[in-house]
Amino acid sequence: MYNKKLFLQGPLAHHDGSPLYVDNARPCIDDIVNLSIRISHMFPVKQVFIRVVVDGEPHYTQAHIVHDNPEESWWTGSIKIWNTLTSYRFLLVTEHGNIWLNGLGLYSYDIPDSHDFRLSTFHVPEWVQNAVIYQIFPDRFACSTVHPIEGQPDWAIPVTWDTPVAAHTPDAVRQMYGGSLWGIAEHLDYIKNLGANVIYLTPFFPAESNHRYDAATFDHVDPFLGGDEALHYLIDCAHHIGIRIIGDLTLNHSGATHDWFVTGQHDPNSQEAGFYYFDQDDRASYATFDGVKTLPKFDHRSHELQRRLYAGAQSVVARYIQDFGLDGWRIDVAQSAGIYRDINLNENVAEQTRSTMETADTDTLLIAEHQFDASQTLQGPGWHGTMSYAAFTKPTWAWLGRHHPSSEWGAPGVPAHYGGEAMVKSMQAFTTLVPWQSCLASMNLLDSHDTSRFRSIAGTFQALGIALQMTLPGIPSIFSGDEVGLEGRGLEEGRQPFPWNPDHWDHSVYELYRLLITLRHNHKALQDGGLRWYRHDDDTIIFERADKTETLIIEISRKHHAPLISTVNAESLTDGDDLKKGSPMPSSGPAFHIWQVHD
Amino acid sequence: MYNKKLFLQGPLAHHDGSPLYVDNARPCIDDIVNLSIRISHMFPVKQVFIRVVVDGEPHYTQAHIVHDNPEESWWTGSIKIWNTLTSYRFLLVTEHGNIWLNGLGLYSYDIPDSHDFRLSTFHVPEWVQNAVIYQIFPDRFACSTVHPIEGQPDWAIPVTWDTPVAAHTPDAVRQMYGGSLWGIAEHLDYIKNLGANVIYLTPFFPAESNHRYDAATFDHVDPFLGGDEALHYLIDCAHHIGIRIIGDLTLNHSGATHDWFVTGQHDPNSQEAGFYYFDQDDRASYATFDGVKTLPKFDHRSHELQRRLYAGAQSVVARYIQDFGLDGWRIDVAQSAGIYRDINLNENVAEQTRSTMETADTDTLLIAEHQFDASQTLQGPGWHGTMSYAAFTKPTWAWLGRHHPSSEWGAPGVPAHYGGEAMVKSMQAFTTLVPWQSCLASMNLLDSHDTSRFRSIAGTFQALGIALQMTLPGIPSIFSGDEVGLEGRGLEEGRQPFPWNPDHWDHSVYELYRLLITLRHNHKALQDGGLRWYRHDDDTIIFERADKTETLIIEISRKHHAPLISTVNAESLTDGDDLKKGSPMPSSGPAFHIWQVHD
Repeated sequence: MYNKKLFLQGPLAHHDGSPLYVDNARPCIDDIVNLSIRISHMFPVKQVFIRVVVDGEPHYTQAHIVHDNPEESWWTGSIKIWNTLTSYRFLLVTEHGNIWLNGLGLYSYDIPDSHDFRLSTFHVPEWVQNAVIYQIFPDRFACSTVHPIEGQPDWAIPVTWDTPVAAHTPDAVRQMYGGSLWGIAEHLDYIKNLGANVIYLTPFFPAESNHRYDAATFDHVDPFLGGDEALHYLIDCAHHIGIRIIGDLTLNHSGATHDWFVTGQHDPNSQEAGFYYFDQDDRASYATFDGVKTLPKFDHRSHELQRRLYAGAQSVVARYIQDFGLDGWRIDVAQSAGIYRDINLNENVAEQTRSTMETADTDTLLIAEHQFDASQTLQGPGWHGTMSYAAFTKPTWAWLGRHHPSSEWGAPGVPAHYGGEAMVKSMQAFTTLVPWQSCLASMNLLDSHDTSRFRSIAGTFQALGIALQMTLPGIPSIFSGDEVGLEGRGLEEGRQPFPWNPDHWDHSVYELYRLLITLRHNHKALQDGGLRWYRHDDDTIIFERADKTETLIIEISRKHHAPLISTVNAESLTDGDDLKKGSPMPSSGPAFHIWQVHD
Repeated sequence: MYNKKLFLQGPLAHHDGSPLYVDNARPCIDDIVNLSIRISHMFPVKQVFIRVVVDGEPHYTQAHIVHDNPEESWWTGSIKIWNTLTSYRFLLVTEHGNIWLNGLGLYSYDIPDSHDFRLSTFHVPEWVQNAVIYQIFPDRFACSTVHPIEGQPDWAIPVTWDTPVAAHTPDAVRQMYGGSLWGIAEHLDYIKNLGANVIYLTPFFPAESNHRYDAATFDHVDPFLGGDEALHYLIDCAHHIGIRIIGDLTLNHSGATHDWFVTGQHDPNSQEAGFYYFDQDDRASYATFDGVKTLPKFDHRSHELQRRLYAGAQSVVARYIQDFGLDGWRIDVAQSAGIYRDINLNENVAEQTRSTMETADTDTLLIAEHQFDASQTLQGPGWHGTMSYAAFTKPTWAWLGRHHPSSEWGAPGVPAHYGGEAMVKSMQAFTTLVPWQSCLASMNLLDSHDTSRFRSIAGTFQALGIALQMTLPGIPSIFSGDEVGLEGRGLEEGRQPFPWNPDHWDHSVYELYRLLITLRHNHKALQDGGLRWYRHDDDTIIFERADKTETLIIEISRKHHAPLISTVNAESLTDGDDLKKGSPMPSSGPAFHIWQVHD
C-alpha cells in the first residue's frame, strides 16, 4: 500500500489568492479574472465549477483543464468582477458527490460563505509585498548626537541609556531615555543594512507618558522627540534611501490632557464637548479606554471630530501625509474605535480613514492594531491590514513558546501550547476570513511594544519563529532590538533601550535576520507566492511558497523527527542539505530549511 | 474498556441560546444575564470562564459550579449586556491547556468570533416559539363559494381546479385556477384543525402572473384575489380564531408593469426614474432580477423609494400592518435587495424595514427569503429570521432525498447526498453564525412554492423529514398540500391546486402532521428547548431538546441499525417502545421516535 505520510506532498486540491492562481489579484469592476485550481490525480475530479456570489446570489461558471502534469491537473475558469467584494469557492464534481473547496479546505457538505475566497476592488499598496517593517519606540531607539534634546517634560524621569527599565512600578511609563526622531535619522543606515525598508514609529505626539498613547495634541510632533522639524528631516532622509515611515494614531481615544478634551470637559457648549462621551450630569465622568481615566474615548458621532481626525484633507490623518510625506498610519486599538454601547461606527471610522489616506496619497498603508478577530474591517474598504496577533503571533507563541507566560492578551487559564497542526489551523481560521491582499498587508510580528520579547518566550526556538515570520505571507515586522537578541518578560521589560554596543548583541541572531530578510527580498515567491501546507504534526511543519518562477519548500521543526521521503530535487537556500527525489529529508531539530525546487 | 459509542450520551460540554442555558434570552442593554454550561465528568475541567466581546475587546468573567449530578456539572457565570450584539464563548481550563467552546463545539486552539454564541438586544416576537406556518399560494388553495371571482386578467388562462399544471411551458405562470383570499377565509377551520397558527401568503398584489412576484402596484390587493375587502375579511376571521397572517413583498424588484416603473421609464425627470437602475442613454435597458426583463430591480439609494416601500408610516410595509392588521412580511429575494454592483444597501433595507414594522406593531414578524448564507443580516437589527433553506431544507434533502433532483438551488454537478453527520454539520455551520433567537424566528421548511414537493424528493422518508421539521428549533412551515401527500418534481409541478377531495389524500401523512404539530404545541421543549446532538452517523441521528421542565430525546433513522444502550428511562410520545436504562434502544428503520425522559 502507498503510505502517503512518508512522502513529501501537497494537499489534494489547492487555490489561494496569489498570482499563481488569480491572474488579476487587484481587479476593478468589470474586469475578467481567471481563477486556477490545482488538483492531484489522486483525487478523481470530473468537473470543476466556480461558485461566485453576484449581487447576493451564487452563480456558477465552469473551469477547464489547461495544464496536466504527472502529479496534477490545473483547471482554470473566468469570472467577471461585478461587485466591490467578490466571494467565491470551488465545486469539485466527483463520482461520489460534490465537494466544496474554500479557504479552509475540502467539504463534502454545504457551508456558509465565511471562508470563501475573496477578491476586493479596493487594493492594498503594491509595495507591501516586499516590505519589511522595523518598529521603533522613539524614546528607546537612539539619542541624537547632532541634535540633543534639551530638558524634559514635567512628568518625565530622565534616565541614562543604561538604566534598567522600572518595570512594574508607576515610573515605568515616566522614564525618559531621550531617544528622538533625530536619533533615528542618524541611524537609518543601520536599519537599511539590516534589510528593513519601512519604519513603524509608535506615537510621536506630545503626551504625558513615554509611550505617548495619551496624546495631548495631534497638531504637532512632540518637541522632546525633535518636533515637526525632526519628523520632516527623518522622513526626507528615509525616503532618500528607500525607507518608508508609518506613524501611530489613536482613533479610539486621546489623552485626558488633550486640548479637545480639556475644552470639551469645561465647556458643554463647545464643539469639543461632542468629541467624548461625557456624563451630562457629571463631566468628571466619561467613557474611557478600558477604564483608564487618562484615556477618554472619542465619540465618533461628531462630524467635527471626524473632520479633525480622519475625514478629509484638513484631518490629522491627511495632514501628516500631505505635509510631512508620512507613508501610512498604524491605528491604535482599532478593534474598539467608534464602538461604545449601542453605537458602532467602527466600519465608518476605518472606511473614512482609508478614503482620506487614498485621497492624500494612494500609496499609503493603513494598518489596524487588532489583537483579535479583525475580519469584519479587513474585507476591502476598511483597514488594509492588521497587526497579525491573532493569525500569526499567538499561534506562533503557542507552538514555539518554551517559556510562554500566561498573562499575554488577557486570556485566563493556562498558556496556550499547540502542536504544529493546531498552530496552522488557528492561523488558517483567521487568514481565510479575509481577502489574500489583506493578509499580504498585515504585519507578521513575533512581538511588539505590547508584549514580552519573543526571545524570552521562545528561547532556543527563536530562530524558528524568525524563519516562520520571514516565509509566511504578510509583512515581516521586527520590534527594534529583536534582531540583536534583546530579551524581556512583560511589555515594560521588552521596552529596553536599543543596545548600541555590539558587544551586547547576539550576532548569530543578527546574521540570521540579515540572511532571511535578504532571502525574502530576493525571492518573490516568499513575498506574494501561493501558500500550500504540505504537512503539520506536533513538531514539524512543511509548506510551499510558489509563484510562476519558482517553488520554495520550507520546513520548520521543533525536534528531531522521522524524515519524509522527498518527491523533488531541491537546493538548500539555508546552507543545509539539498533534497534528492526518493531520499529522506533532514530529520534533525530544532531546525529550519528553505529549499528551492529544481524539478 | 468503556466504549462510549454503545451508550446514549450527549456531548462533553454544551451551551446554547435557549432558556435552559441563558436566563434572559431577550436582554436589554445593562441587563445582567446568567449563562450556564454543562460539562460531563468525563471532561476534567478545572475552571470555566466566559469570554465576552465588549466594545470590540474580549473580557473574561469566571463561571462557577452551581449544580452537580452524577454525570455532569453545571457552571454559571454572569455577564452585563453592554452592546446591542453580545458575542461570547466559553474557555474551559484543563490540565492540558485551555479549550474553547463556541457554537460549533470544542477547540484546542484559538478561533475567530464567527461561531461565537450571540445575544441581541433586538428581539424577535415571542409568538414565533409556538408558531406553525402554513404557506398558501393564493391562486391554488381554495375558490370561494360565497364570493366567486368574476372574470380574469388579460394575461391569464382560466382553468378548472382539476386541470393539470402546464409545467415547463410558458402557460405555467398564466394558468389561473381562481383561488382567492375569500376562499382561504372559508377554509380557516381546516388550517386551524391541522394545528397551524400562522398563514404565510405568497404575494397578493396585482401582477401579470399567477405567482404575482411581478407586482404591478403595491397600492391595493389584487381584485382577482378578492381585493382589499377580502384581505380585511381574511385577516379579521383569522385573528378571531388565533391565526396570524404574513404577506409577501418584493423589495428587490417590482414588475415591469408597475406604475412606478412605467412612470420612471418614460419620464427621466420623475421621482420614479430614480427607483430603478435605468441606462441613461437607453431607458429600455435597466437592471433586473436575474436577467428577467419583467422584473426591474429597485435602486434603494432613492429616499423616496425607501419612503414609499419600507421607511416610515406611509410605506407599503407599514400600511398593510396598520390598515389591515397584517402580522408580518416575508421579503422576496432578500439576499439581493439593495445590492447592485458597487452599491450595497442590503443591511439598510433590512434594518429600516424592521424598524418600520416595529413602529407599526411591535409584534410583527419579518422573514427573509434567503436561500444561502443569510448570517450577515440575521445578527439582530435586520430580518428576524430567514427561510432556512441553507440551514434546514438543503441538508435535510441531502440526507433524506431518495429521489433527489440535481436542479434545485442552481448548483451544478451531482445532487447532494449526505450521511447524518454531514447533514448535522451543514446545519450547524449555518445556525451557529446567528443568535439563537434568529434560528427560532426562521422557517424550517421541507419545500415551498420554489421547490419540488418534499414527498417527491424523499419518498418513504417523508415522515422522517416531517419529524425533523417539527422537532428542531425554528418555525415548522408547511407548504399547503404537503400535509395530504401532494407530489410534484420541479417548482411548477409542486404548485398544484389543493385537493379538497379527501379521497385523494394520504391520510397517514395528514395524521402524522396532526400528531407532530400537537406534540410541538404541547411540549415547550420542542419550541424553545436547548438542542444537544447526541450522535449522528450515516443512517441515524439522535438529539435532545430540553427545557427546565422536561428532556425529550429524538431519534431519526433511515435504516435498521445497531442499537445504542439507553442511559435513561423514557416514555415514548410516538407510540413506540419506552426506553429503559441499560437496555437497547430501538434499531428498526426507517423510523423516528420521540421520548420524554423520566430520570
